[in-house]
Amino acid sequence: MIIVVKPGASRDQVEKILGTLEQFHLKAHVSEGAERLIIGVIGDKSRLPPGALELLPAVEKLVPIMESYKLASRAFRPEGTAFEVKGVRIGGTELTMMAGPCAVESEEQVDSVARVITSCGARFLRGGAYKPRTTPYSFQGLEKEGLRILRTVADRYNLLVISEITSENDIDYASDYIDIIQIGARNAQNFRLLSAVGKSGIPVMLKRGIAETIDEWLGSVEYIMSEGNYKIIMCERGIRTFETSTRSTLDISAVPVLKSKTHLPVIVDPSHASGKAQYVRPLSLAAIAAGADGLIIEVHPNPICALSDAAQQITPDEYRVIADEVKAIAEIIKRTYPQ
Amino acid sequence: MIIVVKPGASRDQVEKILGTLEQFHLKAHVSEGAERLIIGVIGDKSRLPPGALELLPAVEKLVPIMESYKLASRAFRPEGTAFEVKGVRIGGTELTMMAGPCAVESEEQVDSVARVITSCGARFLRGGAYKPRTTPYSFQGLEKEGLRILRTVADRYNLLVISEITSENDIDYASDYIDIIQIGARNAQNFRLLSAVGKSGIPVMLKRGIAETIDEWLGSVEYIMSEGNYKIIMCERGIRTFETSTRSTLDISAVPVLKSKTHLPVIVDPSHASGKAQYVRPLSLAAIAAGADGLIIEVHPNPICALSDAAQQITPDEYRVIADEVKAIAEIIKRTYPQ
Amino acid sequence: MIIVVKPGASRDQVEKILGTLEQFHLKAHVSEGAERLIIGVIGDKSRLPPGALELLPAVEKLVPIMESYKLASRAFRPEGTAFEVKGVRIGGTELTMMAGPCAVESEEQVDSVARVITSCGARFLRGGAYKPRTTPYSFQGLEKEGLRILRTVADRYNLLVISEITSENDIDYASDYIDIIQIGARNAQNFRLLSAVGKSGIPVMLKRGIAETIDEWLGSVEYIMSEGNYKIIMCERGIRTFETSTRSTLDISAVPVLKSKTHLPVIVDPSHASGKAQYVRPLSLAAIAAGADGLIIEVHPNPICALSDAAQQITPDEYRVIADEVKAIAEIIKRTYPQ
Amino acid sequence: MIIVVKPGASRDQVEKILGTLEQFHLKAHVSEGAERLIIGVIGDKSRLPPGALELLPAVEKLVPIMESYKLASRAFRPEGTAFEVKGVRIGGTELTMMAGPCAVESEEQVDSVARVITSCGARFLRGGAYKPRTTPYSFQGLEKEGLRILRTVADRYNLLVISEITSENDIDYASDYIDIIQIGARNAQNFRLLSAVGKSGIPVMLKRGIAETIDEWLGSVEYIMSEGNYKIIMCERGIRTFETSTRSTLDISAVPVLKSKTHLPVIVDPSHASGKAQYVRPLSLAAIAAGADGLIIEVHPNPICALSDAAQQITPDEYRVIADEVKAIAEIIKRTYPQ
Repeated sequence: MIIVVKPGASRDQVEKILGTLEQFHLKAHVSEGAERLIIGVIGDKSRLPPGALELLPAVEKLVPIMESYKLASRAFRPEGTAFEVKGVRIGGTELTMMAGPCAVESEEQVDSVARVITSCGARFLRGGAYKPRTTPYSFQGLEKEGLRILRTVADRYNLLVISEITSENDIDYASDYIDIIQIGARNAQNFRLLSAVGKSGIPVMLKRGIAETIDEWLGSVEYIMSEGNYKIIMCERGIRTFETSTRSTLDISAVPVLKSKTHLPVIVDPSHASGKAQYVRPLSLAAIAAGADGLIIEVHPNPICALSDAAQQITPDEYRVIADEVKAIAEIIKRTYPQ
Repeated sequence: MIIVVKPGASRDQVEKILGTLEQFHLKAHVSEGAERLIIGVIGDKSRLPPGALELLPAVEKLVPIMESYKLASRAFRPEGTAFEVKGVRIGGTELTMMAGPCAVESEEQVDSVARVITSCGARFLRGGAYKPRTTPYSFQGLEKEGLRILRTVADRYNLLVISEITSENDIDYASDYIDIIQIGARNAQNFRLLSAVGKSGIPVMLKRGIAETIDEWLGSVEYIMSEGNYKIIMCERGIRTFETSTRSTLDISAVPVLKSKTHLPVIVDPSHASGKAQYVRPLSLAAIAAGADGLIIEVHPNPICALSDAAQQITPDEYRVIADEVKAIAEIIKRTYPQ
Repeated sequence: MIIVVKPGASRDQVEKILGTLEQFHLKAHVSEGAERLIIGVIGDKSRLPPGALELLPAVEKLVPIMESYKLASRAFRPEGTAFEVKGVRIGGTELTMMAGPCAVESEEQVDSVARVITSCGARFLRGGAYKPRTTPYSFQGLEKEGLRILRTVADRYNLLVISEITSENDIDYASDYIDIIQIGARNAQNFRLLSAVGKSGIPVMLKRGIAETIDEWLGSVEYIMSEGNYKIIMCERGIRTFETSTRSTLDISAVPVLKSKTHLPVIVDPSHASGKAQYVRPLSLAAIAAGADGLIIEVHPNPICALSDAAQQITPDEYRVIADEVKAIAEIIKRTYPQ
Repeated sequence: MIIVVKPGASRDQVEKILGTLEQFHLKAHVSEGAERLIIGVIGDKSRLPPGALELLPAVEKLVPIMESYKLASRAFRPEGTAFEVKGVRIGGTELTMMAGPCAVESEEQVDSVARVITSCGARFLRGGAYKPRTTPYSFQGLEKEGLRILRTVADRYNLLVISEITSENDIDYASDYIDIIQIGARNAQNFRLLSAVGKSGIPVMLKRGIAETIDEWLGSVEYIMSEGNYKIIMCERGIRTFETSTRSTLDISAVPVLKSKTHLPVIVDPSHASGKAQYVRPLSLAAIAAGADGLIIEVHPNPICALSDAAQQITPDEYRVIADEVKAIAEIIKRTYPQ
């Protein structure tokens, strides 16, 4: 950390800064610029009461040098993270395709989607059993019955299951049915849930909070990793901006930014980002072209009758077209598309 | 809800829209404008699969007429909501002052703040026992011991306790110590927690999510109210914008907007909004002048040694100055300042 | 336009609304929903004083049905716009590649870039002669000498010139040197400049304002088109959000959204959007995969010595790699790459 | 400026950084932290090609120490700026009230407003003659005739005129009619206009761009000041955020932030910020309570018939109420209300 001292600060005021650092067992490295005095702080900054230095009258600003996350940082694993979930590899050169309905409604519904996506290379079946909805009057999901359906259908097609959990109290039960736990955008900074998922050791896909900076998102990852669970996928699903033509604004730049900041695999969710079926194809292709490690796409056999978010779900036929184009782009940028 | 039909839609396509409405037992009211065909939809829209109509090719857009919240709406209680917590009135003409340290650190710390704020009219003691922090390496709060300290000190000064809960699993325990449960910005859409707090019947202060629109915030309120708990305070604490001079951007307009949209009391948190002690005074005065029903302010006997968010905590002496000015402004706008 | 009437509005208040409409020669179409009275307004709404209806006490809200732009709307030219600039076609299936240095510094500098981009299919040479800079102390461009250099080099390689104009007073002079006038993000709502450029009849590339919604952007386009100039390219260059890892957030969804809202060609600027050379490649590929009609990329023979925005300029060698990958993706999505 | 070196950078890479600094005649001050090597850069950074250092492979990030504005900085005039416009003082302890219709429509309209505001202490008459409108089909203002009306009415009541200019070409003409030139939000970074206004020497009120950070806004101020014109008022008029209940989000914190960053007077425009007449009163009081040096408010004798922005204009009677309350709050915070 670097302390920029206000112009015109008195000698006493500077001494007060240095004394405060000493009090917390930190070393100071003073250097005089043309227009400002700069103090470099060396040592374990976590000893320092957060915000304390800002209160000293001679402090103009503090400049952090290190990120606040460590395990999530690229420097922790420069070669990148790839891992296996029940024999299916995620990360590395491999692309990962996840698809399924927004909400689980019935076994028939899930089966008809699972059949198609399996034939197009997807290895993960998604589907919401616990649905966080903006209003309490909307369909909240089939809950346990939903998980049972997902598992049954997934086993039939040799797929793995990814589904959202919204409370630490559901982890035990869900772990019998789910291969990857999804943490949704609304719980992206529910640190109690993140810690619990970290302790569970179950692979996690952590969606970005709707207004989370990339650095804060890596802070959320750190909550999971610091419990010893390193099997984490980060999922970009759009951020909130002033633009309302799409539900969220897909932050496509987050893909290469994450590739430079962290070692973890990055997946893009074009369905939630746009909220409109017609934009799922262009955003899917863009995500892969930008270097994403995979996609999670909402597919429904009959979107018009879906119990949730009909507008953003595509049909199995539309999924086939996207899968073919993704495969072709994968070749150009030297990625492996799942067989 | 109103359906705007695309220009050039065929007769068949319009029939398809009308047929879909009929299928879900909704009535249609067609009207032909100069440039667009408009279909008014009458009946219980919750029968309609969400998003389904957007998928019909002739639909240009849907326009909601009603808000998605009901109990939180001003129309539900046009006269406004005022309620008592253990004999202390919140809402109406009364201003409510809440103050205390960011995090509970020790009984001495809390006591020295409580003594001063009591003498200036505050009736609620705040203090964090469970601290959600952006990184797992920061101080996470004294937890149960923190609650015990708050209760002890509050009882000594005849204050009531408001403190944050971050998991549904803590409600039972906390209810022995807390008079108002605070739900923080990061859990603003943790619907499981909102429902659980609703069921508990304990008064709640619900902070705005960092990127929550006012309408979404009222949707979160609805989760609590729909469980039968109507003792809710809404707390504006700043929203995320592109501006970084302050930690968040205090949405001062939210105060009068909420006054027109809902019947619930509105409190402003200038400490978290700005993140800087030097801005707490101007923002406190602005909030009261704008019509807020009260303030929640972070006060620490010795901010520079605080274990969390030192930069935004003011001293007891600074609090006194603000309280006096708030009192004077209260008179001008015909509000009652607590004795 | 639709007027939603407040619940509980009196008969007199509703009559007042109807009377106001009549006063401005508009027809009303009243329909009674389950919970709200709705008034459809038919006729030329431009006669109505803007904002007047909102002031009537019984009006809950107004819902616009039509967009405020007409000529820019897809409905105006459903088949899409393609046009020629001195024999070079823009729009349609053709991809357009524009490249060149951020700022024109010298003839040698521009020449060395022009040579390479020409060999990779670019037909437009870009380069800033008038540079709008956030601080008055930065390099402001070579101005007239810059335009002369651009023209000289472009003619040598049979390229066309695109360059930014920042004042209506420069149009006459610039028209001797420039084939496409670029309007930058900071002047995106400088309506005087837009009208002047519209009157000039010179083809225009209009960048999106940093916080302009897509609908407002189309309103800016309308200023140009309403003067009779229809040769317009829209350029997405990133919007301002809370995320700071990139200079702006490239709104990749704007590409398909514009394809559905307007008939005009859409080009993406990955250099300004990200502000970092290392992200130009992934964002370029993403833009083309998402359906953009072309790219404008900053290339500098020796970025480290550039007089402006060195960080976002790539080398000619890096440009070659991108051009090859763009060409390969173009084939997959059935676009024509320039020979 | 400080250069943070990447962990694991080779000795050669560090030498390359140092060599680059030397090449541009800058001194380096290297210091080794626990986890990072830090290089302080001393000397005239404007010699350095902007962005050049970021391109060196060993550079992790650059940290600016100094702001990019100088004349606008508080340090330039720690005592604050107050100045006179034709005998009327702006800044210091004095509050400045500006009011008038959104757009000038007729002499009668302006007169009826001017009479009332004069009697309530306003010394400046505002009114739009050149109206920048989002669509070319809206009323664009009376232009020259509008300026003539403003001047005539202002002289009648001994008021001064503030009005918006949208092109450098209008300055000469307007200077015969206007006492303070207003630069609107859409031209906040129209640097050509800013420089021209700077050269004119006429007092300027510079509105904040809709997505301008406070630091960028001070950069715009610097454009005017660097031409020698120091009579500048900064006007906070709301920023663009995701919230749509109000047209913009009034950044009330900008008032105290500006007070600490710059010496210039700060005025708040509650009318444009909210876009709704009903919110003008609470936001006006909040602005004064937060420390603003004044208000600019839209007042119309008959808002419902206004030719522009009817929804945000209040009546002269409503203005009287606000003026009285502002006066009372002014006393509390020791400000002088104009007689």
